[in-house]
Amino acid sequence: MQMAVQQTLVPVDEATLQAVATEEKMDLDTLQARVQNGEVVIWGEADGAVKPTAIGTGLRTKVNANIGTSPDFSNLEDELDKLHAALTVGSDTIMDLSISGDIDRIRREIRAACDVPLGIVPIYQAAIEAQQRYGSIDKMTVDQIFEVIERQAADGVDFMTLHCGVTRRSVAALDSSERVCGIVSRGGSMLAKWMEDNNAENPLYEHYDRLLAILRRYGVSASLGDGLRPGAVADGSDRGQISETQVLGELVLRARESGVQVFVEGPGHIPLDQIAGNVILQKRLCHNAPFYVLGPIVTDIAPGYDHITSAIGGALCAAAGADYLCYVTPAEHLGLPTTDDVVEGVITARIAAHAADIVKGVPGAAQWDEQMSRARRDLDWTTMTELAIDPGEVIRRRGERASLDPAACSMCGKFCSMKIDQTRHHAGT
Amino acid sequence: MQMAVQQTLVPVDEATLQAVATEEKMDLDTLQARVQNGEVVIWGEADGAVKPTAIGTGLRTKVNANIGTSPDFSNLEDELDKLHAALTVGSDTIMDLSISGDIDRIRREIRAACDVPLGIVPIYQAAIEAQQRYGSIDKMTVDQIFEVIERQAADGVDFMTLHCGVTRRSVAALDSSERVCGIVSRGGSMLAKWMEDNNAENPLYEHYDRLLAILRRYGVSASLGDGLRPGAVADGSDRGQISETQVLGELVLRARESGVQVFVEGPGHIPLDQIAGNVILQKRLCHNAPFYVLGPIVTDIAPGYDHITSAIGGALCAAAGADYLCYVTPAEHLGLPTTDDVVEGVITARIAAHAADIVKGVPGAAQWDEQMSRARRDLDWTTMTELAIDPGEVIRRRGERASLDPAACSMCGKFCSMKIDQTRHHAGT
Repeated sequence: MQMAVQQTLVPVDEATLQAVATEEKMDLDTLQARVQNGEVVIWGEADGAVKPTAIGTGLRTKVNANIGTSPDFSNLEDELDKLHAALTVGSDTIMDLSISGDIDRIRREIRAACDVPLGIVPIYQAAIEAQQRYGSIDKMTVDQIFEVIERQAADGVDFMTLHCGVTRRSVAALDSSERVCGIVSRGGSMLAKWMEDNNAENPLYEHYDRLLAILRRYGVSASLGDGLRPGAVADGSDRGQISETQVLGELVLRARESGVQVFVEGPGHIPLDQIAGNVILQKRLCHNAPFYVLGPIVTDIAPGYDHITSAIGGALCAAAGADYLCYVTPAEHLGLPTTDDVVEGVITARIAAHAADIVKGVPGAAQWDEQMSRARRDLDWTTMTELAIDPGEVIRRRGERASLDPAACSMCGKFCSMKIDQTRHHAGT
Repeated sequence: MQMAVQQTLVPVDEATLQAVATEEKMDLDTLQARVQNGEVVIWGEADGAVKPTAIGTGLRTKVNANIGTSPDFSNLEDELDKLHAALTVGSDTIMDLSISGDIDRIRREIRAACDVPLGIVPIYQAAIEAQQRYGSIDKMTVDQIFEVIERQAADGVDFMTLHCGVTRRSVAALDSSERVCGIVSRGGSMLAKWMEDNNAENPLYEHYDRLLAILRRYGVSASLGDGLRPGAVADGSDRGQISETQVLGELVLRARESGVQVFVEGPGHIPLDQIAGNVILQKRLCHNAPFYVLGPIVTDIAPGYDHITSAIGGALCAAAGADYLCYVTPAEHLGLPTTDDVVEGVITARIAAHAADIVKGVPGAAQWDEQMSRARRDLDWTTMTELAIDPGEVIRRRGERASLDPAACSMCGKFCSMKIDQTRHHAGT
């Protein structure tokens, strides 16, 4: 199996590998070996329009921002604003989840303006076009789904979320369990509904080889979606979720054998004590494919604050081995995010990812904190501001709540512990 | 030892015990046994001005909000505003950390307006009065410190942070280690400076029996402060911290023997992978005294977002057994918090505490989430709003980003997964 994978995987050019190795401070041979065995997925090209970016074992935990129109807020300019804002605050990748307006045009405009890897979820557009043409999602045809996938691939997206694990068997497992929240994935619910109404298997599963052929032709990575992810902490790690994960594990191997880079999406809503176990299970069942998590959210009771509930879960999940965090904004469960929500979501996810990278031993991660701590000890506000994950926020808050003592802050002023401690003879190193 | 403790602990009246047992859904005998062996600390009285509130094994994780003046923002009305805001959004306790203005008057006004347990840090006022009277913190005298402690106790505070573990030996341990950030506790730095300048032992340690006598007389609990806590993730679990914790463990036993309720404060800044170990160590060395954590913050690089860095650490710490979380606001490391910061801090800490309570098995915790999830499945926005930790934020966001489809939200509109999934025959339970 290992040999077959090594022979067939889409080759990544040397310059791109070198760019990633340098950026990540990883030995080139190690990186190459991990790309070959599927533990690392690489997007972009050293001399291309998309910045070389990689996810997987030993690499910095990456952050994705979802943007895109909805029926209620369907404005390309707004989404381009969100794109620019997300890139400005350091989102590593973007997903365009548009479900309203001229979806092709929106995607192409976002692609043109986006210099980081771009992902998409083809089933949305396929379902929406079926509704527009035939009046119902149920009327979506297999050829139509694949036509949309090829159209999107041809536009140069880097990866696609494909809910291939929403099979008749895994949906039956979900339906026979005592799940509180059913199917909470937009794509998963569309597919399960279509499968029931047409008494048919999931086309993305049944025609997986056809799918892989398109992905390989256009050099698009497969993000195997978790259409049956739990959407309530009560549903965490249940039969539906695990049944789907098992299917995804099989599909990881088939993607690798076909020369398609592949990674796997994960939950969702998970209680704190199940997070590490979920990562172990996912990595084991999915053959160490990079793990892309949507949260996980650790409590359901905080709509308006789900950037925080997901930061808790995301940090823990990444520390346990997840490689890539999809941001969650404060608007989650309540509405389409604004640009401000996007900014808050990206920064919060970056904080979670970085907290994990410190303990994952990602090169440079702990050093960043130590530099900040030294600047804090020295009351060096210029360096503290420069090193802050959001320098603008530091400047804003320091301006609004300034201390008369410029060396201190207005919490303690002259009673600053750093100032007092520096007057001791034996203090510090 | 156990017998001695049972004989001498300040008795908690039956009605108060019963009020806590009912509120916490804990068997009365279990609660009483845990109060007696020191695993639970109770404040307030069933028929008094302070709501009966308890921290410790098996109880809901509690949240504290720090308020109080600083030299730069020294306005009683502002602090009373913060008090009311903190109570409105569900802070379980309040600490008044005022270090400017008429500190006695501020404390008394806050006490009068505060119907939950109130804590204080006497060394601040002692140091400030020494500076005012004698021109320097170094001139603080032992009698003066104890006079302040008694004055504050007589005002009816419920607990006091006492940095008794900042001993000559533990400070030497800190100074001989390679700590990045030195002493970052305001009280800790004041005491260490005083000790050095006076070539003397910490009076709160040296005269611990005198301290306990005052606490016992006024029924005030001891919150053994961690004046040597790490203030950088690089300093987590270092010699200085652990040396102090060992001292605090000895002092826990002496407090119990003297009939004084006692709990222990903990870090601080700690990397994610050291949090569970810190809780185990703290509980073991401190004889299962309730553990009150100040964070922990899991990365240093996010000033402006330390409510989030501490939510990550606090959730994990509470899940591992910490009993009581001191909030951290977005203003931490940058300035004195505003009322908005206080609100954000309390809600964020409550989210972290609740995420932990789900996995701690605290009665009612998981049920809250399940009710929310059922309302979410049913698209019952009235119930979702009522159950939200911040209903006002749900209403505000739903108002600003409303969907034309009142059953859905503006993220998906008619493509809501809940709506689609409900049309499947086999869906749900």
